[in-house]
Amino acid sequence: MTDASASTALLTDQYELTMVQAALRSGTAHRQCTFEVFARQLPPGRRYGVVGGTGRMLEGLEQFRFGAAELEYLRRESIVDDATLQFLADYRFSGDISGYAEGEAYFPHSPVLKVTASFAEACLLETFILSVMNHDSAVTSAGSRMTLAAGGRLCLEMGGRRTQEHSAVAAARAAAVVNFAATSNLQAGREWGIPTVGTAAHSFMLLHDSEEEAFAAQVQAFGAGTTLLVDTYDVEAAVRKAVEIAGPELGAVRLDSGDLVQQAHDVRGLLDSLGNQNTQIVVSSDLDEHAIAGLAAAPVNSYGVGTRLVTGSGAPTASMVYKLVERADADGRPVPVEKASAGKTSIGGSKSVLRSIGEDGRAEAEVISAEAPVEESGYTGRTLQVPLVIGGEVQPGCTGEEGVRRAGHRHRASVHQLPAEARRLSSGEPVIPTIFA
Amino acid sequence: MTDASASTALLTDQYELTMVQAALRSGTAHRQCTFEVFARQLPPGRRYGVVGGTGRMLEGLEQFRFGAAELEYLRRESIVDDATLQFLADYRFSGDISGYAEGEAYFPHSPVLKVTASFAEACLLETFILSVMNHDSAVTSAGSRMTLAAGGRLCLEMGGRRTQEHSAVAAARAAAVVNFAATSNLQAGREWGIPTVGTAAHSFMLLHDSEEEAFAAQVQAFGAGTTLLVDTYDVEAAVRKAVEIAGPELGAVRLDSGDLVQQAHDVRGLLDSLGNQNTQIVVSSDLDEHAIAGLAAAPVNSYGVGTRLVTGSGAPTASMVYKLVERADADGRPVPVEKASAGKTSIGGSKSVLRSIGEDGRAEAEVISAEAPVEESGYTGRTLQVPLVIGGEVQPGCTGEEGVRRAGHRHRASVHQLPAEARRLSSGEPVIPTIFA
Repeated sequence: MTDASASTALLTDQYELTMVQAALRSGTAHRQCTFEVFARQLPPGRRYGVVGGTGRMLEGLEQFRFGAAELEYLRRESIVDDATLQFLADYRFSGDISGYAEGEAYFPHSPVLKVTASFAEACLLETFILSVMNHDSAVTSAGSRMTLAAGGRLCLEMGGRRTQEHSAVAAARAAAVVNFAATSNLQAGREWGIPTVGTAAHSFMLLHDSEEEAFAAQVQAFGAGTTLLVDTYDVEAAVRKAVEIAGPELGAVRLDSGDLVQQAHDVRGLLDSLGNQNTQIVVSSDLDEHAIAGLAAAPVNSYGVGTRLVTGSGAPTASMVYKLVERADADGRPVPVEKASAGKTSIGGSKSVLRSIGEDGRAEAEVISAEAPVEESGYTGRTLQVPLVIGGEVQPGCTGEEGVRRAGHRHRASVHQLPAEARRLSSGEPVIPTIFA
Repeated sequence: MTDASASTALLTDQYELTMVQAALRSGTAHRQCTFEVFARQLPPGRRYGVVGGTGRMLEGLEQFRFGAAELEYLRRESIVDDATLQFLADYRFSGDISGYAEGEAYFPHSPVLKVTASFAEACLLETFILSVMNHDSAVTSAGSRMTLAAGGRLCLEMGGRRTQEHSAVAAARAAAVVNFAATSNLQAGREWGIPTVGTAAHSFMLLHDSEEEAFAAQVQAFGAGTTLLVDTYDVEAAVRKAVEIAGPELGAVRLDSGDLVQQAHDVRGLLDSLGNQNTQIVVSSDLDEHAIAGLAAAPVNSYGVGTRLVTGSGAPTASMVYKLVERADADGRPVPVEKASAGKTSIGGSKSVLRSIGEDGRAEAEVISAEAPVEESGYTGRTLQVPLVIGGEVQPGCTGEEGVRRAGHRHRASVHQLPAEARRLSSGEPVIPTIFA
């Protein structure tokens, strides 16, 4: 994460490698396979999910190489045998990956990724792909509800300190996918060109001998357009001092505690009475989609969202799985496969999918077919699976800054196409049914 | 994470840097400060927390340097001015950090870390320290309940695919701190010498033309002592095949779905009847501390724990904060400071703390003093704050493999000293009160 050239190949579970060893021995390692990534359910009560992490996964795929240091660890610890080490040393993913474009809405059983390659090549990627998709999709799925609840107001991602330091970077990117306007996280700014924000914390106020001195120091350093934090002591007194020091050009004040609705009204009134009609109000105290909705009628300009965003607002993982659905037999013919484990059944066969769209232009169903192509099902609508990797080559437009930008546009369009009930924050069923055609 | 030499300095919020800029301008940047890390509450219903991440934070501290690439990003994006860039280029933390040793139990307001340095030096570390401690302590706090519930049975960490790929590595380490015996995560094995485990998934079973062929392939590759996954199709039939193929030396069978209590009894009986008294049973399906407790009477040998561990079993962040509690005034004299923000008050002054121990050898209270040294309070007990960094030098024994090993020993001792109610999984109050003396 901090070093784009670092190998991602050991960010995995041991059994991915031991399976390769056993399959190399049994002669099945090179059987052509299709694995699919899907979630059996959405988090309880959620009406849709949002695919996140696709671009980041593809960036990591390009670094999924076993270099000398990785191989030496595996050899020293006798994790796999020499034949497997040789296979790993030469490993380059040469298969195909297709899937939902990042930012797209998904539903139970939506095949958000499909990996087609030899067993050994595809098996090795399982843990890495799931780690990226499960984390990032948890954040995008939560964050989408927040930006919808915020309407036209800006959402700012500020949760880095409440999650692991590298998850923080990924969460900032996921927030951008679901149309957060900026992040506090500098590494995310550096990696994907996401706009960054940040001015001062309470410690800066306490560092100075008075609130006036702290405000003056900040205005001197960053100009009157800065955002002053006004709740360290007494909010009303602080707003008056802020206006006195920064003048009518004061950019914004930030409220980070207490009854935000009441305070927003009080502070707006006070700012207006002091002639600061253009000074904005930023709020940032334990916000989630419900708190944002509760502030809809309050005179607030932007929302700083932290803990609840980066922890998935009650659903910290998207619970996606990576399941073998088809593999070649000894003669190279494709065979659909599925397990029968209690409560964890899978549906065999490589899936095709479309989102059926009604006459009003809104989505009506997620239609999945494991047999004939879904187009033959009689349903019509929008296809969802796009090529992401062809013959080992990551396709253009999915990664880097462009990937985030495109995902942001796609998220808007995809959510706009959902039925209006998608905006409801109360618990409910998925907003469209998943149909196996 | 994947590259120990990578800079950690941009894994931070922008405002840490802008505060330094403003403080450099106002002449307050070099005021001596003490920041403390603490949690205002434990997660709802929890009886204790466990400090996690200390060693990993100290490892990252040594890489907290602004190199040419980091400075170039900050310059290009005009995030701070030239004077601040110069300060950052020379930045080396030269202060002191003391705190609870990793693996120690903590309670509301326990000052788990204390950072003493100039404002600029200490301020810069806020986000990074909180990210590491909040994540890792969430996992250790959840995992401790699991290893306690497991009694003498082994717990195995297998959650990497349900959390971000670098969080997975940190979570595997955190699990080791609270006495998990092994992890599936290879990078954690590589970085901290944590034992790794893993054999095969359902996909390996489905890859082969029959379950017999899959079992035979695995036994051929890894010997009869391997663990065979027996719930892909029919459990009873699979156990019979497994014993037939691997013989009496079969190491273990793994159950990953269904009613684990009933199945464990059935499978144990079947294994015994087939002469496989030494074959162990591993279970691994959505386990948490409650499920583990529910399996206490079932004939299970070890628990593979995933999602619920790495997501903190309902509390994905420890919600620790980093608060300025004391700073020098213009004359260099220390001044305790605290904010008055509604619902987020802090208690000024650098804290000392001891855990008072009763005549039965059990902990009775967390005694914190912000005024005189806590030893003068009349309470007696065990001191908790140890030096971690002195004059910028990380103290020996806290980091690397040794750090994890020592934290594991400390965790056992610390939890053993808590009142017996600490083992209760039901919701309740912290098992000892926090007293401000």
